[in-house]
Amino acid sequence: MIPAFDPFTTQMNLATGLLDPERETTRQHLSDMQGWYAETVDADDSDPLVYRVLHMPVPEENSEIQCSTTVLEPGAVGREYFMTRGHFHEVRDRSEVYIGLAGEGRLVLATEDGRHVVEPLVPGAVCYIPGGWAHRTVNVGDEPLVFFAAFVGDAGHDYGTIEKQGFPVLVVAGDDGPEVVPNPGYDT
Amino acid sequence: MIPAFDPFTTQMNLATGLLDPERETTRQHLSDMQGWYAETVDADDSDPLVYRVLHMPVPEENSEIQCSTTVLEPGAVGREYFMTRGHFHEVRDRSEVYIGLAGEGRLVLATEDGRHVVEPLVPGAVCYIPGGWAHRTVNVGDEPLVFFAAFVGDAGHDYGTIEKQGFPVLVVAGDDGPEVVPNPGYDT
Repeated sequence: MIPAFDPFTTQMNLATGLLDPERETTRQHLSDMQGWYAETVDADDSDPLVYRVLHMPVPEENSEIQCSTTVLEPGAVGREYFMTRGHFHEVRDRSEVYIGLAGEGRLVLATEDGRHVVEPLVPGAVCYIPGGWAHRTVNVGDEPLVFFAAFVGDAGHDYGTIEKQGFPVLVVAGDDGPEVVPNPGYDT
Repeated sequence: MIPAFDPFTTQMNLATGLLDPERETTRQHLSDMQGWYAETVDADDSDPLVYRVLHMPVPEENSEIQCSTTVLEPGAVGREYFMTRGHFHEVRDRSEVYIGLAGEGRLVLATEDGRHVVEPLVPGAVCYIPGGWAHRTVNVGDEPLVFFAAFVGDAGHDYGTIEKQGFPVLVVAGDDGPEVVPNPGYDT
């Protein structure tokens, strides 16, 4: 079946990730992320924005490419850098690709049986995330981390598995910069 | 089924489209494009490169995101700017997304029943190409046109339909810049 919508163009600012025309935006503030960091989140009245996802208007169907930009602010909870929640795809074999646009980050990837990889996410990095790998981004720099994401349209999001078991590793601020350390709360 | 390959990162130069590590590259020289332009191609001994597609190593499967960069050189055949051949997807409903990185171009889109749209392809433009729309890019500037493409992995390429019937419109150099004109050779 041929889609019932016409071609469309969105102008993306390659440095800020902002879109013209504006698109539907999902926002995660610090208070929304209680339980996702190793330390208890103590969101004061300012309750800062941690990240935004700006979605292109595309149906969630297998024949489509869902795409978005993510803007992840700099910051930390204890030693743990601001990060996205991270998820598996509900349809496990669906893949995704990220393109780093601005800032300095890490992409943390893990399988359900505990294999894990941490990749640099910097401007121009094209990171390929095969099906079966949960993915989370971490901002290890002082500026917003901005990236573009594209994935198979029917992939869906499974946040529950990560909320329950966590990732095998955390990315934390060490004495000499970012460090990857075992996650004491990881629950196989 | 979970893919049998691990996550990988390719560093893409956001201004030139070049990849590190280098990836499999498809090259189209002017002599390869005989019959695709309104005028006869007169490729002299220099036989210039028209475009290159640099492919990420991803299986051609439905669960994957095929992705690549394209570098389309500036130039013309008569009044017709250098362009890619253009194609439908073999699996007609599969969609694709382009991200403009450098240069100034046009994206020509057409359905099999002759509807057509021409979109600007400039740095930061995110052009969504729904299934059923053939797509061709045209370099209307003086510098290489560079863009990133991502599409559903099993889409495949049908060049034959365009080779036979052409696009309803051409993009040509007019007195005051690029012009979109009816294609006299368009064969419904």
